[in-house]
Amino acid sequence: MGVVIALEEGKRPGAADIARLSRLIAPQLEAVNAVILSRTGSDVTMIPEVARHLINSGGKRLRPMLCLAAAEMCGYRGEGHIKLAASVEFMHTATLLHDDVVDDSELRRGRPSARMVFGNAASVLVGDFLLGQAFRMMVEVGSLEALDVLSHAAAVIAEGEVMQLAAAKNLATTEDDYLAVIRSKTASLFSAAAEIGPVISGKDREERAAFRSYGTNLGLAFQLVDDALDYGGNAGELGKATGNDFREGKITLPVLLAYRRGGGAHRAFWRRVIEEQAIREGDLEHAIELMRNCGALDDTIRRARHFGAVALDGLAPFPDSEHKSALLEVVEFCVARSH
Amino acid sequence: MGVVIALEEGKRPGAADIARLSRLIAPQLEAVNAVILSRTGSDVTMIPEVARHLINSGGKRLRPMLCLAAAEMCGYRGEGHIKLAASVEFMHTATLLHDDVVDDSELRRGRPSARMVFGNAASVLVGDFLLGQAFRMMVEVGSLEALDVLSHAAAVIAEGEVMQLAAAKNLATTEDDYLAVIRSKTASLFSAAAEIGPVISGKDREERAAFRSYGTNLGLAFQLVDDALDYGGNAGELGKATGNDFREGKITLPVLLAYRRGGGAHRAFWRRVIEEQAIREGDLEHAIELMRNCGALDDTIRRARHFGAVALDGLAPFPDSEHKSALLEVVEFCVARSH
Repeated sequence: MGVVIALEEGKRPGAADIARLSRLIAPQLEAVNAVILSRTGSDVTMIPEVARHLINSGGKRLRPMLCLAAAEMCGYRGEGHIKLAASVEFMHTATLLHDDVVDDSELRRGRPSARMVFGNAASVLVGDFLLGQAFRMMVEVGSLEALDVLSHAAAVIAEGEVMQLAAAKNLATTEDDYLAVIRSKTASLFSAAAEIGPVISGKDREERAAFRSYGTNLGLAFQLVDDALDYGGNAGELGKATGNDFREGKITLPVLLAYRRGGGAHRAFWRRVIEEQAIREGDLEHAIELMRNCGALDDTIRRARHFGAVALDGLAPFPDSEHKSALLEVVEFCVARSH
Repeated sequence: MGVVIALEEGKRPGAADIARLSRLIAPQLEAVNAVILSRTGSDVTMIPEVARHLINSGGKRLRPMLCLAAAEMCGYRGEGHIKLAASVEFMHTATLLHDDVVDDSELRRGRPSARMVFGNAASVLVGDFLLGQAFRMMVEVGSLEALDVLSHAAAVIAEGEVMQLAAAKNLATTEDDYLAVIRSKTASLFSAAAEIGPVISGKDREERAAFRSYGTNLGLAFQLVDDALDYGGNAGELGKATGNDFREGKITLPVLLAYRRGGGAHRAFWRRVIEEQAIREGDLEHAIELMRNCGALDDTIRRARHFGAVALDGLAPFPDSEHKSALLEVVEFCVARSH
């Protein structure tokens, strides 16, 4: 129980982080932050307040970092990646603002969600504003191919969110159904962020496909680890960021695995807490215990490690470089978060 | 009281309609409808259901018609205007889906709103999907200038919606404040739709500015007439589409004018029904009576007629043509709806 599993089983956990990547692209990331700050500005005072509430709440800027590092790795020599990376972060933020409304979430990154502070209406509308600003920046960069990649992602993300809504609280969801949801809703933006690099560097189809594969599989791994972390990671330890999915009755892989593997009494428990949302004192602890007992948390991390491995092979054909190493470390970082 | 006021005072009302425009661009509009149908398709069954609930609910397709007619008037010879017109309708539909959530609206075009049938979450997410599809279609057309016009409009519309939210139920809003809101929220999409015509036809800055002026002022006139119609038009006659704004406590020009012109007792009434939303039996009728007594409905239409006249002059420099006449008739149609 509670064995720590890094990307390769047995490897020292916590060794991987995104410090190398942050260092490598520090000046570009600073430029992205400046663009984000200026493009959340508006004479309508509520817009910067709502946007910055979320944007400055300690997100890792993982998606824009992928975009920047991929562009640098492809030898890009322009300035377009800055605005495109900022667009990716705006798309991500717009999704979070809308998600909070859709899920009636009270917390986001351990703080009250924007909708709790500013209301549902402001969350919906400022999300729309950020999406509009994202597209304006893409248009300013002027790459129709980048626009194609990102507008496609925007539609697919929304499609994934609707799929998730349709499957909400349905414990009969299969693992494949669930993977289809997170492939659309989470992995497609990781994929698009990574693909922007070769796209604006004028690389060919094969290189674009390689970065897409890296991004997609990294995104899947990232989401699955997130799912496990909400139940305390594979150690099943309660922390301050634990239990949000549970309280919202969200269908995630650990829940699906525990439900499928559980007997009658266990299934009745899952139906009560997830489908009926009738949650009592101690239910979260019991849920985690059930997950640990049937290996649902460990196996969610194992699935994540599988996708992480595919992500690494996505970039395998490219010659070694500092940027490549940094991108590979991101995969390790994402999976190693699980303990 | 209840005098009918067409675009030119004294002109026979009802003479203007959009039949000529519909006839002129019938084949293109059919193509737009086919694109709309195919692009609301998705394997995620909820998406076409929600999208078509609204798209097939008897909207006039006014914005795509402007786009098509402007392109034809500019001698455009391609196919791009079809997808761009469909994009404009998708942007409009996405706005309506989000508006219904923001305003807690129960009705839309006399039918239950999408959020009442499918829920708030589906309305938000299908709106996002349509916005994503709109941008995909724009990218497929491949005109960066058209993308610039429409992405700018998307951000400005959201900005206007947030402005409206910030001014919600605030009777101290001035007429200028209110005009700034509807200029962003309504007129900017009319403007963008009209400007797409000269843009994809490669016309110069002056021609683009002319169509922008036409579209903006038509949009302002359209919104003001809509505002008056919700209180029965200048005749103040109750109909089935009357009173929605009132029940939602919306700040519109007739309300602002009646509040500013009213004495103490009248202002107390407006504060109760709009700011406090404490609406009693007979309040709508009383509101209409106050508006009629102080000329608020007539004057809202007069303001609309002013913007309609500016719209006409926007197109004045262009030689006469069937398409120009049809576009001018749209202005008359919009204002003549008021009786």
